[in-house]
Amino acid sequence: MYQLVIVRHGESVWNQENRFTGWYDVGLAEKGVAEAKAAGVTLRNEKLGFDVAYTSMLKRAIKTLDYILEEMDIVWIPVHKDWRLNERHYGNLQGLNKIETVEKHGEEQVKVWRRSYDTPPPDMDPDDARHPKNDPRYKHVPLRDLPNAESLKDTLHRFTPLWKDKIISDLKLERRVLIVAHGNSLRALMMLLEEISPEEIMQINIPTGIPLLYHLDSSFKVTTKKYLGDPAEIEKAIQSVANQSKKK
Amino acid sequence: MYQLVIVRHGESVWNQENRFTGWYDVGLAEKGVAEAKAAGVTLRNEKLGFDVAYTSMLKRAIKTLDYILEEMDIVWIPVHKDWRLNERHYGNLQGLNKIETVEKHGEEQVKVWRRSYDTPPPDMDPDDARHPKNDPRYKHVPLRDLPNAESLKDTLHRFTPLWKDKIISDLKLERRVLIVAHGNSLRALMMLLEEISPEEIMQINIPTGIPLLYHLDSSFKVTTKKYLGDPAEIEKAIQSVANQSKKK
Repeated sequence: MYQLVIVRHGESVWNQENRFTGWYDVGLAEKGVAEAKAAGVTLRNEKLGFDVAYTSMLKRAIKTLDYILEEMDIVWIPVHKDWRLNERHYGNLQGLNKIETVEKHGEEQVKVWRRSYDTPPPDMDPDDARHPKNDPRYKHVPLRDLPNAESLKDTLHRFTPLWKDKIISDLKLERRVLIVAHGNSLRALMMLLEEISPEEIMQINIPTGIPLLYHLDSSFKVTTKKYLGDPAEIEKAIQSVANQSKKK
Repeated sequence: MYQLVIVRHGESVWNQENRFTGWYDVGLAEKGVAEAKAAGVTLRNEKLGFDVAYTSMLKRAIKTLDYILEEMDIVWIPVHKDWRLNERHYGNLQGLNKIETVEKHGEEQVKVWRRSYDTPPPDMDPDDARHPKNDPRYKHVPLRDLPNAESLKDTLHRFTPLWKDKIISDLKLERRVLIVAHGNSLRALMMLLEEISPEEIMQINIPTGIPLLYHLDSSFKVTTKKYLGDPAEIEKAIQSVANQSKKK
């Protein structure tokens, strides 16, 4: 009944440097640009159309979307950039190398910060120049909504109104929706869509740059779910993201 | 009091082929990409900020805006893509080579179509596959608003509500507005802003890729107006667009 496609942004420069990124606005790596273009080619080959797109306020997602729309020759569709699709805010860990963080805080602690559903990492100081309240792009967001750090639970909490108020409204009008976002904001979306439990969601790794097509029924329940593209490429991408999370 | 910058999109492939373009969705030429990036660099060097951007539904304008936002590192600002900023619809002349059109219809007739304020070129047949009503991007525009062909007067008429209802509302909220559009939709804007007469406006040629900065007072009258960038480059661009219009 309804068509929804989600894409996780391509690899960023900080993915490659193995640093906690969160809301830090780092650009796509060359590999990420290639992944974004490939996602656009896949969607073009599948002859899918879109009426509206959503993305975050972060350029690695916005640029991934731009490359996709360009490959599909639909740069004219409306694009909503919304902070509620941002990656999970990684608090005071943002910018730190993951290995160094393990050396400093211990493996167990870092694992909790990375893999617990509801334990946020240490807060970022609101006076920190990097804090969202000091960033002009968030000046229209009520201060009480801006995080100092987020767990996945917090991310789900802030994403839910965007889903319920805006994206579902578009779907109801039979608009075909494309969402390009981040590992954790897309996990939040999957929890809402597929009723995945907090325990299960942390085991799910969304591959970068592989479009995931959902069809939803009139109550927004998933009827079909399918990664798009070459099966060997999809398998490789899933394995790659799974190994990455083991290694780090 | 209010800050507004307008930019005419960089050179397209059809500019180079000397064809009537109008609403045909042709891409930027390599030179156009370079012009767009240079405009972004100029605006960055001027340390101007923007809170919102407007552009047309045509990729040569949208991409010019994208390159500017990327150079300025503000890809996150909201972008409104609106058909009312499209180029003047060139009716049945769209796609034709300008020299060939002169050979077929005579120089005087073509001059009238190109330079008259209120004589539109010949209509495009509504059953023509190229007609806006057959293009999915305009499916939300009321049929009676979609042109078969436009004079500059018609372009002004359809642009005016966007200016009065939306862009002025943004300015009133002290949002700094960036508009990237086309030779004739920007002429329409200049008529509204500067109270230029129909006779005068046809003599004004806006150079491509040179940001034009306006400051407006509380009644949206122009207090200062200035092309931005290297004065020699600006002069060259103005001469180039003036010669182009003489030659063709």
